[in-house]
Amino acid sequence: MNVQILTVGDELLIGQVIDSNSAWMAKQLNLIGAQVTGIQTTGDDLGEMIEALQRAAKKADVVLITGGLGPTRDDVTKKALAQYFDTGFVFSQETFAYIERFFSRLGRTATDAHRQQCFMPQNASLLPNKMGTAPGMWFDEDDVVYVSMPGVPYEMQYLMQKEVLPRLQDRFPGTPILHKTIRTVGEGESNIAKRLETFEAELPNNVKLAYLPSLGQVRLRLTARGGSRDQLEHTLERYAQELEKLVDDLVFGFDDQTLEEVVGETLRAKKLTVGTAESCTGGFLAHRITSIPGSSDYFLGSIIAYANEVKQELLGVKEETLQEYGAVSEATVREMVAGTLKLLGTDLAIATSGIAGPGGGTPEKPVGTVWLAIGNQHEIRTHRLQLGKDRLKNIEYSTVFALNMIRQAALELFE
Amino acid sequence: MNVQILTVGDELLIGQVIDSNSAWMAKQLNLIGAQVTGIQTTGDDLGEMIEALQRAAKKADVVLITGGLGPTRDDVTKKALAQYFDTGFVFSQETFAYIERFFSRLGRTATDAHRQQCFMPQNASLLPNKMGTAPGMWFDEDDVVYVSMPGVPYEMQYLMQKEVLPRLQDRFPGTPILHKTIRTVGEGESNIAKRLETFEAELPNNVKLAYLPSLGQVRLRLTARGGSRDQLEHTLERYAQELEKLVDDLVFGFDDQTLEEVVGETLRAKKLTVGTAESCTGGFLAHRITSIPGSSDYFLGSIIAYANEVKQELLGVKEETLQEYGAVSEATVREMVAGTLKLLGTDLAIATSGIAGPGGGTPEKPVGTVWLAIGNQHEIRTHRLQLGKDRLKNIEYSTVFALNMIRQAALELFE
Repeated sequence: MNVQILTVGDELLIGQVIDSNSAWMAKQLNLIGAQVTGIQTTGDDLGEMIEALQRAAKKADVVLITGGLGPTRDDVTKKALAQYFDTGFVFSQETFAYIERFFSRLGRTATDAHRQQCFMPQNASLLPNKMGTAPGMWFDEDDVVYVSMPGVPYEMQYLMQKEVLPRLQDRFPGTPILHKTIRTVGEGESNIAKRLETFEAELPNNVKLAYLPSLGQVRLRLTARGGSRDQLEHTLERYAQELEKLVDDLVFGFDDQTLEEVVGETLRAKKLTVGTAESCTGGFLAHRITSIPGSSDYFLGSIIAYANEVKQELLGVKEETLQEYGAVSEATVREMVAGTLKLLGTDLAIATSGIAGPGGGTPEKPVGTVWLAIGNQHEIRTHRLQLGKDRLKNIEYSTVFALNMIRQAALELFE
Repeated sequence: MNVQILTVGDELLIGQVIDSNSAWMAKQLNLIGAQVTGIQTTGDDLGEMIEALQRAAKKADVVLITGGLGPTRDDVTKKALAQYFDTGFVFSQETFAYIERFFSRLGRTATDAHRQQCFMPQNASLLPNKMGTAPGMWFDEDDVVYVSMPGVPYEMQYLMQKEVLPRLQDRFPGTPILHKTIRTVGEGESNIAKRLETFEAELPNNVKLAYLPSLGQVRLRLTARGGSRDQLEHTLERYAQELEKLVDDLVFGFDDQTLEEVVGETLRAKKLTVGTAESCTGGFLAHRITSIPGSSDYFLGSIIAYANEVKQELLGVKEETLQEYGAVSEATVREMVAGTLKLLGTDLAIATSGIAGPGGGTPEKPVGTVWLAIGNQHEIRTHRLQLGKDRLKNIEYSTVFALNMIRQAALELFE
C-alpha cells in the first residue's frame, strides 16, 4: 500500500507550526506495512489543494490529508475535496447533534459557524472524532482512498488509531507484518547496539531490529514479515525472548507500556506508596507519576522544594548540610528522602536536586549535575547524573531516571 | 519573492526524522518578505526529485532544497540537479582541499567517498559551509534560483544566514510582509471569532487575520503585505492595537512569548513570590512555572497534595470541609490556598483540585470538574472549570488556566 500525505495550512508555510503530523503518520503506516512515497504541504488555498490531490492520487493507493478543517478556516479542505470529486454538500445532522452535546456539556451553545461546519461532501463517510468537533472523512473513489483529518495532533492521532489504520488494513490486506517492542531504560543506543551485535548479525532475513531512542530510553523493535501469521508469531516470540535475555537488566516493559505505567503497576502489586521531594525536576516527576489514571492508589503527594528554606523547614534538611555540601549534593538528597518519608508517611520517597541550567553552574558542579536519592526506612540509595546544558532535557532525563529508580527500589528494597 | 521548499530523504518518509527545517526556513524567509507557497518531501529517489524540481520551478522564483547530500547518501540531490539542468560534473579542488584540512584537524584523512563528494554540477556556484563538509550550491537558470543545502539543521541554518538570505535579498528586492501575533488565553476559537466578526470583515485586502488555537489558548496572527515597509509597520500596528482592544481581557502576550514566560516576567516585575498546592494538576503547574530559567527568583515551592491526608496534615484543610464539601470543592481549594501561604510564606498561592479522569466522576461532580483558587493574605478568588474526559488534556487545560490566574492575580491583587 503506497501512501501520499498532504498537509494543509498557511501556518505551515510561514513556519509557525512544525509539521510533526507527517512523521507520526509515516511511522504508524510503516507498522502496518504501508509506505509513504511523498509529502506535500500547501497553504489554505483551493487551487493548490486540488492540484496536490491530483498529483497525490496518481502516485498512491491512499491519500491522507490533515488540516484545513474547522469553523474559522473557511473549510478549504472540504471545498477542495467537493470540487475535486465534483460533488455537492449535504448537512450532517449526526455531526451537528454531536457538536451540540459537546458544547452543552461545557455549558455553552453551538454557534452558526459550527452549523456551517456540518455540511459535508456528499460522497464522504464520516469518521467519528471524540477528541474534537470536526469528524474525519473517508472517500473511496476510482481505487484510491482519501482520508481527511483535522490538523490538531491529538485529534489526528485519535482518528488514525481508532478509525483510519484499522480500515486501511481491511481495505488493503497485504503480507502479514508483526512487531514486538522491548522497552529499555538507563543505557544509550550505541552501548546497547554493542551488546546486540552478534544477535543482530544472526537474525534471519525476514526479521529486523530497529533502535528507537528517546531521552534516557531505547525501544528495541523487532519486525517480522512474510509467511503464515502463526509461524510469524512464533518466530517473533522466539527472537524477542532471546533479545530480552541479552538486555534483561535494562528492560522495563513491552510494546506500548510506558515507564510511569510500569512504575504504577509495580507499586500497586507490592502495595507500596511513594512520595517525591523535587528540586531540579520542579514537579515534573510528580506529573509523570500522576499522568496515570488511578495513581492516587500509590502516590500520596510531593514537596517541590525549590527554595532552600523549603528544603530546611518542610523537609528538615540541616542548615549545616546545605552550607557544607550545597543544595546539589548527595547529603542533601539523602536528607530530603528522610524528611519526605517522615512528612508524608509513604513507604518510599525519592528526591532530586540539580542544576538544570542553562545558568547556575560552577567548576565543581557544572550545569547538568543532578543528585538523586531513593529509599525507605531502612536504606537510601543515591545516584549522580552528569547531563548537558539544555534545561528541559535535563529535567526530562532526570525524571526518567528517577522513575526507573522507583521501579527498581520497589522490586529490590522490599520483601 | 515566491519560494518552494523541497526536502529530500528517506528518513522523512518513514517518520524517523521530523522535518523542522521547512518551518525554520519559512520563518526566516517571511522576515525578508518572501513567501513560501508550498513544501514537497521526497525520498532519496532521482525520478521523484526531478519531478518535484519541475513542479517547484513552475510555481516559484526560488527553490530551496535540503538533504540528499553527503558521502553515504549516494548524492541523489546532485545527480538530480545535474540531470535536471542537463549538465555534467566538475571536480572542485577547492572543496576537496577544504575537506582535507577539515579532517586533518580531527587527526583523520579524507576518504575516497569524500573525493567523490567533490564532483559538482558544472553550473553550480558553491557556497562555503563552515559547519560541515558539503558546500551549498546556488543555481540561477531561466529566472529561477535553486539552492541546495545539507539537511543537517545547523549546517542548513548556517548557510541560510551567512549566504542564502543575503543573496536572495540582493537578487529579488521586493514587497515587504509583516506579521504580528497576539496571544490570548481563556476563551475558545469560535467565541473569539464572534467577537472579531466586524473587525475581520473591515480589514483591508492586504491585511489577513489567522486563528491558531491550542489547548486553552488562541494565537491571533495579523499579516500585512505590500507598500513600503514603514507604511506597512504603521498599518499592522494600527490593526493590532484595534484587535487587542477587542479582546483585551484575554491578551497575555505577543509573538513568541509563552504564558509561563509572561507569568515569570509579571511576578519578577512586581517582586512577588508564588507557591502552588496541587491536587488534580499533580505537579504539572509547578513544572510549567519551573520550565523557565531563573524561575527560582519567584517560585519557592509546592505541595502536591494528592491524598486527603496530605491536604489535611500539611495544608490544614479541615476534616469537616472534606466531609461536607468533598476534596473537589470551592471550600477545599480556598483552605489549600490559605494553608500554602502559611506553609511556604509566599506572596501568592494557587490551588487546584479536580477529577482529572477518566474515572472517578459522580452525577454532581462529573469527570472534568476542576476547582481553582488563588489568593494572598487579603483576598482569595475561585473558579470552577467543567472540562472533558481526557485526563492529560484536563491536566494541561487546568494548568494553562491556573497560569493565567497567577498572571491576573499578580496584576490585580497587589498595589
